[in-house]
Amino acid sequence: MSDENFPACPLPISEYPRILLAHGGGGRLMHRLIDDIFVVSFADLALESGHDGAILDRPDGRIAMTTDSYVVDPLFFPGGDIGSLAVCGTVNDLAMCGARPLYLSVGFIIEEGFETALLWNIAQSMRQTARAAGVYIVTGDTKVVDRGRGHGVFINTAGVGVLEQDIHIAPERIRVGDRIIVNGDIGRHGTAIMAVREGLSFEPEIKSDCAALHKAIESLLAAGVEVHCLRDLTRGGLATTLVELAETSGLGLSVNESVVPVCDGVSGACELLGFDPMYVANEGRFAAIVPEGEADRVVEILRTIHGMTECADIGDVISSRSGRATIRGMLGVERVIQMLSGEQLPRIC
Amino acid sequence: MSDENFPACPLPISEYPRILLAHGGGGRLMHRLIDDIFVVSFADLALESGHDGAILDRPDGRIAMTTDSYVVDPLFFPGGDIGSLAVCGTVNDLAMCGARPLYLSVGFIIEEGFETALLWNIAQSMRQTARAAGVYIVTGDTKVVDRGRGHGVFINTAGVGVLEQDIHIAPERIRVGDRIIVNGDIGRHGTAIMAVREGLSFEPEIKSDCAALHKAIESLLAAGVEVHCLRDLTRGGLATTLVELAETSGLGLSVNESVVPVCDGVSGACELLGFDPMYVANEGRFAAIVPEGEADRVVEILRTIHGMTECADIGDVISSRSGRATIRGMLGVERVIQMLSGEQLPRIC
Repeated sequence: MSDENFPACPLPISEYPRILLAHGGGGRLMHRLIDDIFVVSFADLALESGHDGAILDRPDGRIAMTTDSYVVDPLFFPGGDIGSLAVCGTVNDLAMCGARPLYLSVGFIIEEGFETALLWNIAQSMRQTARAAGVYIVTGDTKVVDRGRGHGVFINTAGVGVLEQDIHIAPERIRVGDRIIVNGDIGRHGTAIMAVREGLSFEPEIKSDCAALHKAIESLLAAGVEVHCLRDLTRGGLATTLVELAETSGLGLSVNESVVPVCDGVSGACELLGFDPMYVANEGRFAAIVPEGEADRVVEILRTIHGMTECADIGDVISSRSGRATIRGMLGVERVIQMLSGEQLPRIC
Repeated sequence: MSDENFPACPLPISEYPRILLAHGGGGRLMHRLIDDIFVVSFADLALESGHDGAILDRPDGRIAMTTDSYVVDPLFFPGGDIGSLAVCGTVNDLAMCGARPLYLSVGFIIEEGFETALLWNIAQSMRQTARAAGVYIVTGDTKVVDRGRGHGVFINTAGVGVLEQDIHIAPERIRVGDRIIVNGDIGRHGTAIMAVREGLSFEPEIKSDCAALHKAIESLLAAGVEVHCLRDLTRGGLATTLVELAETSGLGLSVNESVVPVCDGVSGACELLGFDPMYVANEGRFAAIVPEGEADRVVEILRTIHGMTECADIGDVISSRSGRATIRGMLGVERVIQMLSGEQLPRIC
């Protein structure tokens, strides 16, 4: 991981190169850590310091609320880091409800001995990602746990967003005949993480697809697309999402393997590592279920967005009331997609 | 810790006595864990399963947002557990803004190998505490980290509350002449935790004061008390709160040691362990800064509330523009209260 993307640590931080238990103790050192790193990083994102909570305007509609904890290892990886992930992941969960993300809270659980400079970089990454996404980091919390009782840093973010009047995006709106669109090629995030873990390097480097998705969703809604359902393709990948949506809606979801976009790098790496890209986690990919007549327009809109040129219509909702997702393989054989029974491979969250 | 307060684990849980990495993997096992424990525990608290976020009504006013992570060790202690703490702590942060707590999110970071039955008890404790407090647990997240990279379970809760039209409770409203009220005797939570850690037992047992405080605050506001500032006395205890409020307001805060309520048990235990109760954390205590003319009424109202009979008027805001908090000792000597420079003793959060 390189520091080049982040401003250098300000002077005071170099005086305490590692986080001590006392930095979570509620006393002078904790106040200093918060002032030096979090207030400096998040000041213009409206993190209020010295208060237990943030007071915010009355939202202009129903609100959506979501939370996610981020325990990714390694903390820095090609295409992102735990900080950008902690902002994008929670922004995306709000976007998948059709909500416009407004506010994030952030809770850090830091292992004693963690490098202060890395914490600075993570905070700066959160700052950059939140600014680009147009969300505010309004309140936070810092805990330090004994060495060996944590692992570097864990981050929880919770998000609050606002919904336009009439939006109802949910699995129960899925209808027979709907098309299934993915907004880009799948499997990048999990593959990028796994490559770092295994010490493998690919040429060209595989970067995480980590990105905030709410502007893409806003584009669809602004264009008047009747979006039935949205789901980001995180833990468990596209396969798990398809199974979940089929089970929740009680309908059949059918996709064509030959049109599911996977880039050559991911495809090659997955073959080498023994993974199926369908199950590999993404952090900037979603499935949109839309009426048949809207599918072409959705693809057209998404293709204009940075990072989504590979977006594709990969299948449809079939009349079978099976509650199952199926995939038609390259040879035309249709098989049922199973949810992973056990462990996510690679584990990346 | 005893199980008597919680309903027995339902049958399916006994089939997996310990949490596996796969329970955080996004596949079938994770769905099962969520269904068996969290959906069962939080169903009538409106935790929506199978969604990335919860959709909630438009709040009837400005909102407050807050977050806290809970890493307490031991997980179960006299008077509470990490679950009740995770609900009360965040409810209290909202209450200290003058907000009525509405919604909580909850993020679990579970160490591989953690006993499933304990997770059940924690979820049940959260359920009971949230029901009693009248707040909804609307969305959640579960992560599992490798053995040795966490410590049992960490919980993050974020909270959203609503504020009545005109409320403005903040350090800048503190005025010279205001009185400082604490809602009960201090030092119980930290002492209770420390006693368990050190294997000490006191007679009678010292219980944590862990409690939701929003109803007490609502009572004050409903009675028309003009509350200037509120702060819960958690990490760093009463002493740290007084220093923070003095620094933020730029005024002098002066308390009388002889009237700061400390029960005999806490006082004796602190002497034995070498702690000053002024710095010991509480989880059900707050300081209210109110106009002089309101002080008696505030004490009167709080004394009628369960657990707050020891509530007391402990000092006032003095005309000195020192930004310092001072304490007048038993012998009449006034000394400046310092914020802890280093570690919280005992560390309990």
